[in-house]
Amino acid sequence: MNTSTGLRGVFSPVITPFAADLSPDAKRMVRHCKWVLDQGLGLAVFGTNSEANSLSTPEKLALLDALADGGIPGARMMPGTGCCALSDTVELTRAAVGHGAGGVLMLPPFYYKGVLDDGLFASYSEVIQRVGDARLRIYLYHIPQVSNVPLSYGLIERLLAAYPGTIAGIKDSSGDWDNTRGMLERFAPQGFNVFAGSESFLLATLRAGGAGCITATGNVNPRPIVRLFETWQAADADAQQKALDAVRAVFARFPMIPALKAAVAHWADDAGYATVRPPLVKLDGHQRSDLLAALGALDFSMPGL
Amino acid sequence: MNTSTGLRGVFSPVITPFAADLSPDAKRMVRHCKWVLDQGLGLAVFGTNSEANSLSTPEKLALLDALADGGIPGARMMPGTGCCALSDTVELTRAAVGHGAGGVLMLPPFYYKGVLDDGLFASYSEVIQRVGDARLRIYLYHIPQVSNVPLSYGLIERLLAAYPGTIAGIKDSSGDWDNTRGMLERFAPQGFNVFAGSESFLLATLRAGGAGCITATGNVNPRPIVRLFETWQAADADAQQKALDAVRAVFARFPMIPALKAAVAHWADDAGYATVRPPLVKLDGHQRSDLLAALGALDFSMPGL
Repeated sequence: MNTSTGLRGVFSPVITPFAADLSPDAKRMVRHCKWVLDQGLGLAVFGTNSEANSLSTPEKLALLDALADGGIPGARMMPGTGCCALSDTVELTRAAVGHGAGGVLMLPPFYYKGVLDDGLFASYSEVIQRVGDARLRIYLYHIPQVSNVPLSYGLIERLLAAYPGTIAGIKDSSGDWDNTRGMLERFAPQGFNVFAGSESFLLATLRAGGAGCITATGNVNPRPIVRLFETWQAADADAQQKALDAVRAVFARFPMIPALKAAVAHWADDAGYATVRPPLVKLDGHQRSDLLAALGALDFSMPGL
Repeated sequence: MNTSTGLRGVFSPVITPFAADLSPDAKRMVRHCKWVLDQGLGLAVFGTNSEANSLSTPEKLALLDALADGGIPGARMMPGTGCCALSDTVELTRAAVGHGAGGVLMLPPFYYKGVLDDGLFASYSEVIQRVGDARLRIYLYHIPQVSNVPLSYGLIERLLAAYPGTIAGIKDSSGDWDNTRGMLERFAPQGFNVFAGSESFLLATLRAGGAGCITATGNVNPRPIVRLFETWQAADADAQQKALDAVRAVFARFPMIPALKAAVAHWADDAGYATVRPPLVKLDGHQRSDLLAALGALDFSMPGL
C-alpha cells in the first residue's frame, strides 16, 4: 500500500499555444488549463507534449507568472523543469516552488549520452541543494526513447536514500510495463509515487499501487481518464480502459502534439490553438480530416471546451 | 574544387572551464582559447565538447562578451548556437554575428525525435529570418549519435536552395565516412564547406575537397593536426594521419571531455581546468594516471600551455 501524501491522480502535459509569430500565447494557455482543471486533472505544464523543450527559460518563467495571474492554483501544477543546463533547471525549479507547485517533473540533462549514474546523481543533487527549499518535491522523468538518458533503479535508489523527503516519485514514459512494475515493486512501498506515462497503463499502474498517470491525451479526453482513476476498482474498469485505449489509438496514428492541438483547435472553435513551434509541423488538411473522422466514429467530443 | 570563401582549417570545440562552484570560468577560458589560437586553430566555442549544452543562454552570452573583452577575434570563431528552443537559438546566433563570428555551428533542435525535414527546414529558416543579418554564415551540425536528429541530404539541399549565401557548410560528426563523402560529392562543388567531425577523417576529407575538421582533440594536440591540414599533399601525410590517430585513440579510451580537461589541467599545471559540470564526471585518479601514462608513451605534450 502506498501511503504517500504526494501528488496522485491524472495530470496532463498541457499544450502550449503559440501566437502566429510563434511566441507563447499565455491567454489561450490559461483558458485551456482552466478547462483541463475543471475536468479534474492536474497540470503537468512544460511536459514533452507541451513543447516545453522548444521554449526558453525566460518564456517558461513568463508563462508561470501568467498562469498564476490567470488564477491557476500552483498546488495543482507539476511543471517540467529539467533542462540541459544545470543553471536553467535550478532557475525554473526555484520559480515553480515559488509559485507553490505541488511538485516538479524533472528530466535529466538530456544532451550528453552514455553518462554515468554518478553524473545524473550529481545533476539532481546540485539542483536540490541549490534550490534549497523544503517544499521542493521532485518527480523524476524517465522517457528514454526521447531523452536517450534512462534513469536506472540504482539511480532512483541512491536519490531516495539521499533525499527521501524531496524525491517524491517518477513518471515512467518508457512504455515498458516491466520497467514500471519493477519501479512499483521496489519503490512504491517507500511512498514513492509512480505515474504511468500514459493512460494506456493507468489501470495496471493503479492495480499495482501506482499514483496515476501523466498523459498527453489528458488534453483532449480528460473526464473519461479521470473517471477510470476514480473508479478503478469498479466492475467496468477493464471496459473503461478499453474505451480510453480506443481514443488514444486514434491520436497515436498522427504526430501526437500536432494532433492534440488540432483537436483542441476544432472543439474550441479557435484555429489559433493548432500552431506548433518548429521543429514540429502541424497536421495538414488531410491529416486533420482523418483525425476528426476517426474521432467522430468513436462519438468523441470535448464538452465544455 | 571547392571555391568557397568560407571558413576552412582546423577548429577546436574549446573546453569550457568551470570554477569550483560550477560557474563558467571566463578567465581560464580566454587563456585556453589564446593558446589554441596561437597553435593555428579556429575556435568552435560552445561545441559538444565545450559542454555547451550544459550552459544556459545567459551564460553563453556572458562568455561571448568575455572572449571579446579578452581579445579573442570574432572572425576566428564558429560558436555553437543551436539550442532546443528557437528563441534561444535566435538570441545566441544574433549575439555571435554581432561579435563578428566567421560562422556559427548550428545543431538542430534536439529534444523532439522523429521530426520531419519540413520541421527542421522551418527551424533553420526561422532562425535565418529572425536574425536577419547578411553576415550570418551557418555551418550545420550533424551528430546523430548524440542529437538523435540527423540532417539528411534532402534537408541540406533545400536549405542551400533557399539560403545559398547563408548556409555555408556542415560539420559531419557521424563518424560515417560514406556519409561525409556523399556530402562532399553532392555539395562541395557548390562552395559548401564540409568539415570532418574529428581529425580521424581529416586527410580523407581534404583529399575529397573538404574544408578541414572540427575536433575535440584540437584542445590538446593542435599543432600536429594543423600541420596535416597545411601539408596534406606532402609525402608524409599518411604517416602524419597515423600519428594523429594514435593520440586520439588514447583520449578515446576515456570519457572524452573529462580526459581533455584532465590533460589541459596537467600541462597547464592548474587543476582548476579539470572541473566538469554534471551530468559529466571528471576522471578519477586511476583514469588520470592511465591517461597520462599512455600519453607519455607517445611522447605527447602540450608545449607552451
